[in-house]
Amino acid sequence: MTTEARRNRLVAELAARGLDGIVITTLVNVRYLTGFTGSNGALVVPREGGAVFLTDGRYRDQADAELPDVTHQIGRDLLAGAAEHIAGGTWAAETHTLSVDGHARLIELAPSITFVPAERLVEALREVKDDAEVDALRRACDISTRALESLLEGPVAGRTERAVARDLENRMLDLGAEAIAFETILAAGENSAIPHHSPSERVLGDGDLVKIDFGARVAGYHADCTRTFVLGRADEWQREIHAAVRESQAAGVEALREGVAVADSYAAASSSLEAAGWLHAFTTGLGHGVGLEIHEDPFIGPSHTGKLASRTVLTMEPGIYVPGRGGVRIEDTVLVTTGAPEVLTTMTKDLLEIG
Amino acid sequence: MTTEARRNRLVAELAARGLDGIVITTLVNVRYLTGFTGSNGALVVPREGGAVFLTDGRYRDQADAELPDVTHQIGRDLLAGAAEHIAGGTWAAETHTLSVDGHARLIELAPSITFVPAERLVEALREVKDDAEVDALRRACDISTRALESLLEGPVAGRTERAVARDLENRMLDLGAEAIAFETILAAGENSAIPHHSPSERVLGDGDLVKIDFGARVAGYHADCTRTFVLGRADEWQREIHAAVRESQAAGVEALREGVAVADSYAAASSSLEAAGWLHAFTTGLGHGVGLEIHEDPFIGPSHTGKLASRTVLTMEPGIYVPGRGGVRIEDTVLVTTGAPEVLTTMTKDLLEIG
Repeated sequence: MTTEARRNRLVAELAARGLDGIVITTLVNVRYLTGFTGSNGALVVPREGGAVFLTDGRYRDQADAELPDVTHQIGRDLLAGAAEHIAGGTWAAETHTLSVDGHARLIELAPSITFVPAERLVEALREVKDDAEVDALRRACDISTRALESLLEGPVAGRTERAVARDLENRMLDLGAEAIAFETILAAGENSAIPHHSPSERVLGDGDLVKIDFGARVAGYHADCTRTFVLGRADEWQREIHAAVRESQAAGVEALREGVAVADSYAAASSSLEAAGWLHAFTTGLGHGVGLEIHEDPFIGPSHTGKLASRTVLTMEPGIYVPGRGGVRIEDTVLVTTGAPEVLTTMTKDLLEIG
Repeated sequence: MTTEARRNRLVAELAARGLDGIVITTLVNVRYLTGFTGSNGALVVPREGGAVFLTDGRYRDQADAELPDVTHQIGRDLLAGAAEHIAGGTWAAETHTLSVDGHARLIELAPSITFVPAERLVEALREVKDDAEVDALRRACDISTRALESLLEGPVAGRTERAVARDLENRMLDLGAEAIAFETILAAGENSAIPHHSPSERVLGDGDLVKIDFGARVAGYHADCTRTFVLGRADEWQREIHAAVRESQAAGVEALREGVAVADSYAAASSSLEAAGWLHAFTTGLGHGVGLEIHEDPFIGPSHTGKLASRTVLTMEPGIYVPGRGGVRIEDTVLVTTGAPEVLTTMTKDLLEIG
């Protein structure tokens, strides 16, 4: 799907909601709708007439190159530029991200317009990925898998968390990632009990659980994957929590199917942990959409009222965290299809005993 | 200065403005006031009584470790948690970053409170750096300098923009950077005319201008530095624009002194470019504060009405961009003192002819 097709879907939504247009001020939504990869931009999309893209002088050439099919306007004040192109009665503004001050300014600049909340309209469109997006996500996940597999061919014991994390990141970049998707979490031993641990100078040693949460970015799209291994021989308690997480994760993935309620995947994964007696030690979110953002709609939770659509891409990442001892998380990036869920992060989920 | 001392400064500002408290929802401001380095947090600071920090379950252990001196509360809904600790009549909210929807929710949760805009109160405090901050900035700039100097000892011709950028980034990490400060801009030849170019597969060749905008991050603090060199022998036009930028940059830096109007440094740098006949080709911002954010207050421009205070840290980065041919930018991170400005990014600004 071209960015023009995405804009057309948005215009259809505007018509369905009786809106005269929308002002897109969320940068990642601007990127989705135009292909613009810079750090400052806005987009005016009227229900009738063409979209207008706004950015500052730094991005003049880049806008010419990336947005040949969208009118663009260069200026320092994007809201003032946007207001010039807003006409008609009722427009949506992205009030979930637009600041109070920005919103007040927009109202001042376009006093005849009624602004209503966009209610994550573009985020909802972004939940279902088109071919180009699935392709980028697949490549990002493939690079991530190959990078971890190659890392585990060499020794990791005796090296610091930080050194091993950098090694993994360099492997992703060598394999063609444009960037890492987020700062790698590499946590050994007792640090693995901290859900979001920053790699430290701690040396990986015998008997440590090693939790690695990482991913590659390709064409703006993020892979998100966690695996947990053990250095040397696994203890019984390590096997127990790994098995419980693995079973929970498999149950959660199994529920990521077209037409299934999002909350059902939460129920599947959490009831598995509960049956194993470990639900109390699961203290994080279970999963989230992933795409142009590392965390995006839909967020998996018991109170989500929607159903899954085909071509949604989400993570499934239950964990057990035992403070002071260690933790296990297993996370895949998963593509919802009309049939069985497709796991894009294909590396093994066995409790490898590594050197 | 401890984070407690920073909070005390904030409380003094609250008293001076007749406010009963402030709700801090801007993550980087939360970090400044508490030391918290995670990705989700808020802070309630009443004029009387202690501050309360809020985060989610992922950061329970980290909050214990990083904020031993601040009461903290764990929960999924930070605004709801914050509202429990808001009492009294008039509070500031960070309406320059808080979303319209978040603000509406806060008002709903604390209906008896009058919320007024914080008007970048914490950002203003952050402009003047304390000893720990200056130290971190100094270290980040020192690592950046040494990384670039070591890069230039080896050959760069014949390698891609992307490969050379990664090489530089790895050198910063090897030298002790916790991360790179931002995605490196490394632009060769005609790409150097694009102010914010992403490193590509273009190979660096003889006669290219090579513009490198990069920096290291240390303890959350960002270095920001740009140098432009030439591969092989410099042409006359390259020498001309480099000399014009260098002169403008020196004039701008010279004006970064305690008590001098921010707008004066803009006037100094831009009138130098104008005298050289190149002002039309300067299409970006001239400089900005740098610290916990890569771009923060104060932003240097002709309409800034404030004066510089000692211990403010800013960039000075004029440039000349000639579309299709090439460009030059020279940027330092500079510490304002009671005397002469101190340039923290000490590598040479000569137009090196490199191999």
